[in-house]
Amino acid sequence: MEKKTIGVGLIGIGVIGGAVARGLKDRAARLEAQLGFQVELKRVKVAPQDMTRPIIAEFPENIFTTDDDDFFNTPDMDIIVEAMGGEYPAFDYLSRALSSGRHVVSSNKEVIAKHAAELLALAHKHNVGLHFEASVGGGIPLLEPLQYDLAANNILGIYAIINGTTNYILSQMDSAGIEFSEALRQAQELGYAERNPVNDIEGYDSVYKLAIMAMMVFRTEYKPEVIYREGITQLEVKDFKYAKELGFVIKLLAIAKADNGAVELRVHPVLLPHDNSLSRIDGVYNAALINGDLVGDVIFSGEGAGPSATSSAVIADIMAAAQDTALGVGNRMRWRLDDNRPLLPATDVVTQYYFRLNVTDQPGVLADIAAIFKDTAISIASVLQKEVDEDALTAEVVIMSHPARESAVRRAVEALQLLEAINAVNIIRVGI
Amino acid sequence: MEKKTIGVGLIGIGVIGGAVARGLKDRAARLEAQLGFQVELKRVKVAPQDMTRPIIAEFPENIFTTDDDDFFNTPDMDIIVEAMGGEYPAFDYLSRALSSGRHVVSSNKEVIAKHAAELLALAHKHNVGLHFEASVGGGIPLLEPLQYDLAANNILGIYAIINGTTNYILSQMDSAGIEFSEALRQAQELGYAERNPVNDIEGYDSVYKLAIMAMMVFRTEYKPEVIYREGITQLEVKDFKYAKELGFVIKLLAIAKADNGAVELRVHPVLLPHDNSLSRIDGVYNAALINGDLVGDVIFSGEGAGPSATSSAVIADIMAAAQDTALGVGNRMRWRLDDNRPLLPATDVVTQYYFRLNVTDQPGVLADIAAIFKDTAISIASVLQKEVDEDALTAEVVIMSHPARESAVRRAVEALQLLEAINAVNIIRVGI
Repeated sequence: MEKKTIGVGLIGIGVIGGAVARGLKDRAARLEAQLGFQVELKRVKVAPQDMTRPIIAEFPENIFTTDDDDFFNTPDMDIIVEAMGGEYPAFDYLSRALSSGRHVVSSNKEVIAKHAAELLALAHKHNVGLHFEASVGGGIPLLEPLQYDLAANNILGIYAIINGTTNYILSQMDSAGIEFSEALRQAQELGYAERNPVNDIEGYDSVYKLAIMAMMVFRTEYKPEVIYREGITQLEVKDFKYAKELGFVIKLLAIAKADNGAVELRVHPVLLPHDNSLSRIDGVYNAALINGDLVGDVIFSGEGAGPSATSSAVIADIMAAAQDTALGVGNRMRWRLDDNRPLLPATDVVTQYYFRLNVTDQPGVLADIAAIFKDTAISIASVLQKEVDEDALTAEVVIMSHPARESAVRRAVEALQLLEAINAVNIIRVGI
Repeated sequence: MEKKTIGVGLIGIGVIGGAVARGLKDRAARLEAQLGFQVELKRVKVAPQDMTRPIIAEFPENIFTTDDDDFFNTPDMDIIVEAMGGEYPAFDYLSRALSSGRHVVSSNKEVIAKHAAELLALAHKHNVGLHFEASVGGGIPLLEPLQYDLAANNILGIYAIINGTTNYILSQMDSAGIEFSEALRQAQELGYAERNPVNDIEGYDSVYKLAIMAMMVFRTEYKPEVIYREGITQLEVKDFKYAKELGFVIKLLAIAKADNGAVELRVHPVLLPHDNSLSRIDGVYNAALINGDLVGDVIFSGEGAGPSATSSAVIADIMAAAQDTALGVGNRMRWRLDDNRPLLPATDVVTQYYFRLNVTDQPGVLADIAAIFKDTAISIASVLQKEVDEDALTAEVVIMSHPARESAVRRAVEALQLLEAINAVNIIRVGI
């Protein structure tokens, strides 16, 4: 039943692809000891311009090809690994790989999040495995535990800090007291943020990862564009200061929550109580808190990202696919999109809120504000007047609400913005 | 290839066995949706006295049997789950189950730790899976991630708070300032500690779990009795107080560490810097920090124990075994004991130490102490004189050392104990 050598084809030789190629080469003996057979990198599909990369010289030149047909027709190539990233042409390559009857491994959150249903259908149709552990949390085991180890549980909630770039920026704003733009610049200098950071700081990256986890757990397709998303660009250092006074830290969370047969999915900054387990996840670290009805809370954390950690997950997926190949197993995925759990409209979500209002310091303004909260039936838990600016005659008012429906909060914000004495309204959701 | 129903046999109907039996019944629809076929509890082997347990009435009476042959001869029983606990007769049942060619699931740390090599050999010989995720960390996924998701890594270290009972007691001693015996009594009242608590408080339970993780990671048999073990009974509230002043908390850790081709294995209290991720794991929570050469640090934590959380892991193992049965897969375990990594003698371990000395407050005593540290070549990092007792004329001296070899520390402790002015010597290792 066992084959002597399992062949791997790799698409892309960028930072992730390069780390995977090196890992397969450097760890060949380890993989063979674990699996009982050899795993060999047979072929690498590259773009013409990649042939000038220094890493090319580390491998026999004839394993590289720029030709798609040449790549897909490689004999004894049992597994195809996609490490290109992005939606297209990755989707086309993944489709062709699955359709060719090979097990497929991908580290690409965007294409999995956007095309889960099509890719899953292809994997099931051709009876092959589709592995993508590295797409969420980098090297931290998350998707396999969700799919297998926690499979007996009804998952009630997932609360995740799943983007290292934004977590680093928020940690710096909090601990070093520097504003967003400066923290972003530092993150870019350290290589934690890309030159075009929009994917991270506006929450798209977290949305892709949340979509993947939610689809796996709730067995329902949720396209990234239906997920409520708010980035971190509107946060100011004073929010961290006020949050700290009130006993909170600020984190960008990806939240998936079972709610009476429906599902809440949202990515936005959250005021977290300072003693929450996720409050201590700082810097580029990732963490996911998973609440299951049998297991209670389980937390997975680590320095998820980076090429080395990501290659840990990709190579583990390759090993799983290789073992399945050797055992003659096609598709052992449990994941199907056969449920139909509706998404709770964002306006129906109920949480507590933090309001930060910049007001012109004049008599009666607090009464006007209180009237709006009363009219919109939002119950106030506490009010703090902060930072009176004697020159500008402005003050900051921080209001913590009791749990309120998002639709009511939106009405309140609109009404507040119409008050002449109010210069700015910022809100952050509180708690999980 | 697929069978319509996979049959499960269960040995033992205590708290864990009961939770598993209920879980299989209550979650039958969930399991079928995930797996594509039914999983059915066919037979339960019980002791005669168990037939009076209330849980018996929840199931058809004819699934219970007190007869071993009757149980093992049950037709269409594809998987056998052992939930008895203890070394014997569990070992005999597990051996018979594996030899009968069924996949086997166990939640029993003691028998796996003590008989890993024999049980593994039987599983490999009969080409069946041996699953025991629940034996370490209860419901927290740990062994599967170590065996599969982190398989590409050379594991450099495992640092685990893996016994909820002792962690609860230590948390209470720290936060409530109550001494060990009172904290133990409270833990017993709350059901966190057994009436005979020796297995937990003397570290045996942690040793079993450490042995299992170490054997899996280093592919070498380490019998529990060769693992260095120290319990928590000698700790006093003042140790927590002094530790806090110095910036540390005290945790009972299970440590497995790769060390130049050898392996350090030890269970003992540790002074952990208060900002270490494991320092925040309080109460009955468990956590394991795993350091891999590709992935860096990954931490798994949760409220591991309890029947419900444990059943989460056992049922996940049953699902994996059921899927393998349906796919016609025998043994897909990667675990083999085919390496031979020597254990570093405990006396060769190098760490920092905390010494707490109760001394008679007389001139020259500090000079005598310092001379012993000099003679044993242990470098002192700091000295604090604490709590002078004016009546007894005694004082507490706390010495923090630089990294020192255990053999030197043992010589120093012996010499210190010979000093007339020294009434007691307590040591705790520092850092990980």
